[in-house]
Amino acid sequence: MLRLSTPGHLRFGQAAEFTANYGGAEANVAVSVAQFGGSAAYVTRVPENDLADRALAELRGLRVDVDRVVRGGSRLGVYFLEHGASVRPTKVIYDRAHSSMAEAEPGHFDWDAIFQGARWFHWSGITPALSPGAAEACAQACAAARGRGLTVSFDLNYRAKLWSPAEAGRVLAPLMRHVDLCITSAEEARTIFGFDVPADAPDKDERAARALCAEFGFQQVALTARQSSSADETDWGATLFANGEAYPSRRLRVGIVDRLGAGDAFSGALLFSLMRGDEPPGAIEFAVAASALQHTIYGDYNLATLAEVEALVGGAGGGRVQR
Amino acid sequence: MLRLSTPGHLRFGQAAEFTANYGGAEANVAVSVAQFGGSAAYVTRVPENDLADRALAELRGLRVDVDRVVRGGSRLGVYFLEHGASVRPTKVIYDRAHSSMAEAEPGHFDWDAIFQGARWFHWSGITPALSPGAAEACAQACAAARGRGLTVSFDLNYRAKLWSPAEAGRVLAPLMRHVDLCITSAEEARTIFGFDVPADAPDKDERAARALCAEFGFQQVALTARQSSSADETDWGATLFANGEAYPSRRLRVGIVDRLGAGDAFSGALLFSLMRGDEPPGAIEFAVAASALQHTIYGDYNLATLAEVEALVGGAGGGRVQR
Amino acid sequence: MLRLSTPGHLRFGQAAEFTANYGGAEANVAVSVAQFGGSAAYVTRVPENDLADRALAELRGLRVDVDRVVRGGSRLGVYFLEHGASVRPTKVIYDRAHSSMAEAEPGHFDWDAIFQGARWFHWSGITPALSPGAAEACAQACAAARGRGLTVSFDLNYRAKLWSPAEAGRVLAPLMRHVDLCITSAEEARTIFGFDVPADAPDKDERAARALCAEFGFQQVALTARQSSSADETDWGATLFANGEAYPSRRLRVGIVDRLGAGDAFSGALLFSLMRGDEPPGAIEFAVAASALQHTIYGDYNLATLAEVEALVGGAGGGRVQR
Amino acid sequence: MLRLSTPGHLRFGQAAEFTANYGGAEANVAVSVAQFGGSAAYVTRVPENDLADRALAELRGLRVDVDRVVRGGSRLGVYFLEHGASVRPTKVIYDRAHSSMAEAEPGHFDWDAIFQGARWFHWSGITPALSPGAAEACAQACAAARGRGLTVSFDLNYRAKLWSPAEAGRVLAPLMRHVDLCITSAEEARTIFGFDVPADAPDKDERAARALCAEFGFQQVALTARQSSSADETDWGATLFANGEAYPSRRLRVGIVDRLGAGDAFSGALLFSLMRGDEPPGAIEFAVAASALQHTIYGDYNLATLAEVEALVGGAGGGRVQR
Amino acid sequence: MLRLSTPGHLRFGQAAEFTANYGGAEANVAVSVAQFGGSAAYVTRVPENDLADRALAELRGLRVDVDRVVRGGSRLGVYFLEHGASVRPTKVIYDRAHSSMAEAEPGHFDWDAIFQGARWFHWSGITPALSPGAAEACAQACAAARGRGLTVSFDLNYRAKLWSPAEAGRVLAPLMRHVDLCITSAEEARTIFGFDVPADAPDKDERAARALCAEFGFQQVALTARQSSSADETDWGATLFANGEAYPSRRLRVGIVDRLGAGDAFSGALLFSLMRGDEPPGAIEFAVAASALQHTIYGDYNLATLAEVEALVGGAGGGRVQR
Amino acid sequence: MLRLSTPGHLRFGQAAEFTANYGGAEANVAVSVAQFGGSAAYVTRVPENDLADRALAELRGLRVDVDRVVRGGSRLGVYFLEHGASVRPTKVIYDRAHSSMAEAEPGHFDWDAIFQGARWFHWSGITPALSPGAAEACAQACAAARGRGLTVSFDLNYRAKLWSPAEAGRVLAPLMRHVDLCITSAEEARTIFGFDVPADAPDKDERAARALCAEFGFQQVALTARQSSSADETDWGATLFANGEAYPSRRLRVGIVDRLGAGDAFSGALLFSLMRGDEPPGAIEFAVAASALQHTIYGDYNLATLAEVEALVGGAGGGRVQR
Repeated sequence: MLRLSTPGHLRFGQAAEFTANYGGAEANVAVSVAQFGGSAAYVTRVPENDLADRALAELRGLRVDVDRVVRGGSRLGVYFLEHGASVRPTKVIYDRAHSSMAEAEPGHFDWDAIFQGARWFHWSGITPALSPGAAEACAQACAAARGRGLTVSFDLNYRAKLWSPAEAGRVLAPLMRHVDLCITSAEEARTIFGFDVPADAPDKDERAARALCAEFGFQQVALTARQSSSADETDWGATLFANGEAYPSRRLRVGIVDRLGAGDAFSGALLFSLMRGDEPPGAIEFAVAASALQHTIYGDYNLATLAEVEALVGGAGGGRVQR
Repeated sequence: MLRLSTPGHLRFGQAAEFTANYGGAEANVAVSVAQFGGSAAYVTRVPENDLADRALAELRGLRVDVDRVVRGGSRLGVYFLEHGASVRPTKVIYDRAHSSMAEAEPGHFDWDAIFQGARWFHWSGITPALSPGAAEACAQACAAARGRGLTVSFDLNYRAKLWSPAEAGRVLAPLMRHVDLCITSAEEARTIFGFDVPADAPDKDERAARALCAEFGFQQVALTARQSSSADETDWGATLFANGEAYPSRRLRVGIVDRLGAGDAFSGALLFSLMRGDEPPGAIEFAVAASALQHTIYGDYNLATLAEVEALVGGAGGGRVQR
Repeated sequence: MLRLSTPGHLRFGQAAEFTANYGGAEANVAVSVAQFGGSAAYVTRVPENDLADRALAELRGLRVDVDRVVRGGSRLGVYFLEHGASVRPTKVIYDRAHSSMAEAEPGHFDWDAIFQGARWFHWSGITPALSPGAAEACAQACAAARGRGLTVSFDLNYRAKLWSPAEAGRVLAPLMRHVDLCITSAEEARTIFGFDVPADAPDKDERAARALCAEFGFQQVALTARQSSSADETDWGATLFANGEAYPSRRLRVGIVDRLGAGDAFSGALLFSLMRGDEPPGAIEFAVAASALQHTIYGDYNLATLAEVEALVGGAGGGRVQR
Repeated sequence: MLRLSTPGHLRFGQAAEFTANYGGAEANVAVSVAQFGGSAAYVTRVPENDLADRALAELRGLRVDVDRVVRGGSRLGVYFLEHGASVRPTKVIYDRAHSSMAEAEPGHFDWDAIFQGARWFHWSGITPALSPGAAEACAQACAAARGRGLTVSFDLNYRAKLWSPAEAGRVLAPLMRHVDLCITSAEEARTIFGFDVPADAPDKDERAARALCAEFGFQQVALTARQSSSADETDWGATLFANGEAYPSRRLRVGIVDRLGAGDAFSGALLFSLMRGDEPPGAIEFAVAASALQHTIYGDYNLATLAEVEALVGGAGGGRVQR
Repeated sequence: MLRLSTPGHLRFGQAAEFTANYGGAEANVAVSVAQFGGSAAYVTRVPENDLADRALAELRGLRVDVDRVVRGGSRLGVYFLEHGASVRPTKVIYDRAHSSMAEAEPGHFDWDAIFQGARWFHWSGITPALSPGAAEACAQACAAARGRGLTVSFDLNYRAKLWSPAEAGRVLAPLMRHVDLCITSAEEARTIFGFDVPADAPDKDERAARALCAEFGFQQVALTARQSSSADETDWGATLFANGEAYPSRRLRVGIVDRLGAGDAFSGALLFSLMRGDEPPGAIEFAVAASALQHTIYGDYNLATLAEVEALVGGAGGGRVQR
Repeated sequence: MLRLSTPGHLRFGQAAEFTANYGGAEANVAVSVAQFGGSAAYVTRVPENDLADRALAELRGLRVDVDRVVRGGSRLGVYFLEHGASVRPTKVIYDRAHSSMAEAEPGHFDWDAIFQGARWFHWSGITPALSPGAAEACAQACAAARGRGLTVSFDLNYRAKLWSPAEAGRVLAPLMRHVDLCITSAEEARTIFGFDVPADAPDKDERAARALCAEFGFQQVALTARQSSSADETDWGATLFANGEAYPSRRLRVGIVDRLGAGDAFSGALLFSLMRGDEPPGAIEFAVAASALQHTIYGDYNLATLAEVEALVGGAGGGRVQR
């Protein structure tokens, strides 16, 4: 997707130019894994044009394998972004209908070839929201991944501008049985799957995780928990539920340069950490620190390095100049 | 007026370019009313040149009727703006002497024609500060407005770089009898009209409002109350005094993108709210929320929408992305 | 030196352009003195090229005398700067090896001619860190300055990317006997000179200052004390130790536009204040206020005016627009 | 439509930002008429979002009446533009499928209400190329306009990326009987309608015009004739065929700032000139001069003034500074 | 003066920002002399504000002595600039009335102190056009300069937006007796002083020069001769008339980056060349080459170096990269 | 290398920012080959820092294999670029001494591993100019390439700022025996190797090529022939000498957006064309068209596509918009 942002804090009505960034939920996750030194390939469908070429060149430059991307269809998804400030929320205008991916059909992807050599498959709830064809492609990918013994992770990523909670629940629920690791938030889980966890229960994350595992048979559930007081600052943390236990992270107070992509940065870092064999307490701290840093980076990609994330896990963050 | 701002936080001595915005106290008020869906016409005098054309095109684009603007004179007023940060205050260099409006004379305006079809007239204390001719034009406008039965509102808007408190008081006092709604602050009222309200009295706003009504016979008085700790953040609220009672708003903590125009946004929103028949408690909350949002918008105009203001009145502001 | 910064909060990997600023520790100090109305000349060695010409033109424009600058060598020192945000620290890539100054040799400077008419000599610990030749030039300058009866001030300015604490201590210690006023921090003094002052002692600044005076015979010691919680904000203050007594400043909470050069702004303001005869309590407040303002100014130079510093000393800083 | 251009001469693959301009064939024509002092209303269908609001605000600011614009559908048409240079041609990526206008249906427009008070209707061949629904809307508009006695002008504006010549001919031919003034080029006419005029005949424009009139019964035909040697410069002229006679303009050599919108500028100026009663020789010179100036203006709108066009008609253009 | 230019080729109505450059006819001349290595001081009157400080800092940085500049009055002169292209001329909006210099009075300048140590005085015809006070200051300066034996040079620099030819002639004629070297063009001389030299006479420059010497007793006359075919390119040359003989330069075809300041660059280079003792043929070639280069430099100052001018005099200019 | 260019036509002394591009002679060649669809790996030595990471990411994104790049040393080479205009030449300030590549030593490269799977080796005369170590690395690479049967091509690329003709000749001559295809110009060959071909001989290219083959035993020689009249435009063509015959290309007149990298674009296109088996006449036309297009593209890389080059070979270039 092409993201077109108004400069600084300008509103849509004021913008004489847009800053261009390329991204997308799964692409962002792949970038995170690759930036930390992992190996990641990205699969999607994009048109044969110069904008899509640029998007792929960026990913390739960041060490994401894009050789399995399918070319075709007529347009790259676009969204317009207006950064909020203080009491004014960030605003998004989606223009992603009819994108190459939204018009993807199951036959476009040869999952057996795509999964050759892979051991993990990650997908996001945004993709099936695009169109029935995209949803069907997700379903086939999940089945193929499971059939080949890949670990499957899933980030719910509910977008109210794309579908209703009811639609989302109806489409996603049957796919959940293929998922090993589910990434969401207690609030999202309640909205989409209707779990009856009170929003203000002190152990709401653990209860939501248990309910998700009970319902869908997930091995692990990661729940992010954001508390924002304004568009400029957030309080950020998460809980990983694994082996029947909840591992809450410490919470970080983070000033925001660009909030978008934080959830993907969380997913990417969590995947990287789990893939390299970190235990749950370490993995959840790594994922929270990585995504905290992503809030301070313009664009959807998390360009924080492994060393930077580990320094923040280790207690840095006080703002000393590195010189 | 043409506002020329240094980019970002650069000082005047560093700026190799200036960002251009057009505005002016009454123009900003008109934009607010028009943006919320009200009907507003703006009256001023600007020269016949391309800069003035641009200023009028912007206003026209924002649905402000500029057909009654008088063309003539030799220059558009200019001011240079350096945005402050933290302990460094925002700085303004005025270059508005000899502007077309400063050189306006009463004969330039045919108030009867101008007020055709109008029901409300709003003016600001900056205009009579420009020159005796501009002050005389204000006086004639007030008289004509009152004569035609328009509601007259007035924003004191004292500018120390334009005139002294004594001068301001001397020129403005006689005009006050035409005013129905006076917008100012307790501190301004004390400075200009010499009311003896202690700056730290807990009920200083109510006492100032009562004094103003007693002295000048206003129907309503709105007093804004800003408490700034730095150039980056402010605490913002206001009180509307109407029917002998004070209606204080809740107070908002607001991060600042651009402070200029906040007072005009308050006036514009208050006018809109009162014109559509809101009761004082609702009107003052609407005006405070609208002007809080304006602090987060670059330029003098308040480009917040009616829906956004109402969402903030209703408790939004926590920074959630709208997607 | 040429500083090349990524725009806004972009990371090095994202930058398609760099903002150019010129500076350097001693140059920044000279600018401060000259901006406040003092007389300052800057001595260094820069190549014969257009970039160095631009650097000198800027300094000359700001009233710094650059007529004693030596031209020669092959390159201007460069450093690349990535501004941090919140939990992400600011990052510097030095590219100053082999600069004209790093390749300076003692014979390049005729200190007797240079010090003609001077009464004060200030140098920074960065210069001897560049190369043995630069260190030798510093030593000769110190000796010549002392020989001519100039007051000598020194800012330790330790840079871990240039040398180790042990190297710094070994090179700097013998030069300290020429120094009248030493500017550093308790932490730096401990790191470089090994004073055994516990980092959390409440009177650690005073104890460090006493130890420095005892060891090196300084007349005065100024210790800055920064406490940062993030890359966006800092708590800032200092202590001046003179005549056997410690004069701590009040502490200021400062939002950060650009942290670089704050130490130099402190030194420059302190020198100016002492040169004009301020007493220690006034001098340290002036220096802290000046460097607090410098945090709000882009680039290494402190472009705050004398009046602005004095206003902040006097209690301003609340963010009121000057209009 | 939203046009998103790469800055300067950057290629799509290099652009980190896009400059935003709003336009569209008929909108550009309306702007020309309004800028010269004529009265023009623009009719189209755009979605209910902030980008469309901005597009309409720009037009309203330029005095184009947009009150008859229909709101609905899901997206504003977009195109991406890469400015060529010298031997490298300008490149366009269209992303206008599924725009609100492409999905317009005849029932969306109440032509009788729309044409209230109008005396001229202009449309472009791009609109029916968008979709069958848009083509049907054009047909109904033409019929309604003719039925109400409006003069109908039409700019063929063939776009190879939207449809084939055969499709264009098939859709457009039946609509031609409603057209009074047809604007095209000899080459376009040959391509779309298959007139057998040799490309190198010296009188090819006159012959094409006669053939068009004979075939479709046009009152007038205007044929532009561009001869480009590079992306930077063009040779520009036109012929108006009216009352059975051909009126060729003088030819101008024009350096190009931005080629897009030149044809619309020609149409707009020709309409304005004919509407105010200019004779053919004057009208064609006015239209050629106006569109020559438009080549020197960034964006699709022709922002040249009436005085500037008339000066160029009168022989200016030599580059003397106006001071 | 502060020059505010629209970026690139944007029109005034399109500009959301202005590029700031500082200049002025005599300042530009001083910069040229100083950049080539000469010694130059600039005298004017500017207000006490940050914009004037910046203007002076730039000049000081470029080695122009600004210590004799008088501070006072209320505003810096401003002009707005829209760069033309091809058939569209460059456009200027002056906003210099009431500037500090326009409101200068003779008593503001102590010419005896100002001319201390000087040997040459240069002034431009723009200054007396500003106001009677400025004209009177010019007259006193000329008399004082002549009285002290300085060489006096004068650049006619007629600006139609400031005064009429008749006014210019009336004010300037009496001052001409103080002038040794007059710089103008044949066309200007005819317009202002009414010499009857046909515009198309092949020897019109020589005849105009002879007439000027005969009328006013000039020692030398330099006449520039520009022939522009568009806003992008010019044909440029000049003639120096000295010792009763005309020395025409070769003519150069020059592409234009920024035309403003070319005449001042010519004057500055001519002064420098004559001051260092060049003979007329060398001096006129130097001045033409210098001002040709200035056409390729953004802003009013000529930042070409002595070596670059001499290389162009020597036949360079073919565009080879210097690497 | 990092190239830092002043924006637009600004001079070094005016630039407040620099545009960053990454490139280098051999990197540019590799990009050309990869962009046309060939397979290319780039070998160099760069430091372990974020700037080098960015440089490699760009190349990787453009499909150049950078896995064989050696990391080490302390700095990336830098050069500063000021784009000329018209009579003002483009200017370069090199700052590449002590770069990681300049400090490379033969032991840094394992040529046998590097050449695994390769069939062609290309190098440029800039590399041995950097330092004796770099020259030695070139010598070893040539020998290893020849030993493994690779075709070796060489672009002389003489840079007067790096070494004298005599030095260049002395270092390069012994390496020539490893070279199959030599790319240079008649003028360069004369300067460096002293061939006695008159600069104005009509067959000077053929004579130079014959002399080079006779002296060094090249299989093929390609000679570019640029004729510039200004910094804005060039006349461009080349001759390929192969099998004892000269194949001159047609000549193209090209407007210049950015001249740097044109020679590398020629080399890259020639290599691609020869590698895919084009005959000499086709190869030289392809290479000239490709490098003509590169003049119109900002930065050192040739981002023209295969289709665009072939269109220009086939006669396009007339500036028609592709829409």
